Amino acid sequence: MAASCVFCKIVRGILPSHKLIETERTLAFLDIGPLSEGHCLVIPKAHSQFFHQVSDTDLAELLPMAKKVALALNVPNYNLLQNNGRPAHQFVDHVSSHFHIIPKQADGSGLGIQWPTKTMSKEDLEKTAASIRKALAELKEEST
Amino acid sequence: MAASCVFCKIVRGILPSHKLIETERTLAFLDIGPLSEGHCLVIPKAHSQFFHQVSDTDLAELLPMAKKVALALNVPNYNLLQNNGRPAHQFVDHVSSHFHIIPKQADGSGLGIQWPTKTMSKEDLEKTAASIRKALAELKEEST
Repeated sequence: MAASCVFCKIVRGILPSHKLIETERTLAFLDIGPLSEGHCLVIPKAHSQFFHQVSDTDLAELLPMAKKVALALNVPNYNLLQNNGRPAHQFVDHVSSHFHIIPKQADGSGLGIQWPTKTMSKEDLEKTAASIRKALAELKEEST
Repeated sequence: MAASCVFCKIVRGILPSHKLIETERTLAFLDIGPLSEGHCLVIPKAHSQFFHQVSDTDLAELLPMAKKVALALNVPNYNLLQNNGRPAHQFVDHVSSHFHIIPKQADGSGLGIQWPTKTMSKEDLEKTAASIRKALAELKEEST
């Protein structure tokens, strides 16, 4: 638990929330500043500031939980979103890594997305891919 | 496999791609229309149009795979995004459910997000939560 983390306080019941469902490792509750009706959050109960710091065990449980919530929301259109770092819309630094489930409602409410694609040549894409594959191979070496 | 699905063809090697890493159930590769350098996709190899149709077994493996890719990208700011339904930016209906990992690069490239929050009273939030909890309880009954 991180002492200043709002979500850790919600997990412990120190702050109130509109809880939906929980397991030993995960919790789903309503976002109180929703983008649309039914906007929920799904979080691991263990604190991690960023997605890449969450344990694989916790990560394995998050999406099956999010799927249950999505099925219960029963909306045809929705986004799952997880933000890391302030420039990528992680508004509060000390808040634990969390997934938003955001219905796109018939009234147009929901997540606003802009999709400004870049044009990259096959050669540049392959250069990027080679660089990521090299970093992945180095990760594997570290973990063995 | 869905015959018309671009991602199923990539999984089978019928279409070329910039593959990064794969397991028996999951595959990560570059988005060829990237929002920023390093924009990747992580998919289950089994076809599902929507997130809520993906098997729990496949879902359990997706985020640990996405975490490996995020660690390899080694960028401080990034978004994970998964879109369902055309109004929620799922551009191609027959394309299998997939997660985007989108670096927010120093030049500002990456996912554009608008965050138009709604004001909802505690009472309205609790009404929404109660309705989702009821739907969750009904899901549980169906699965037993």
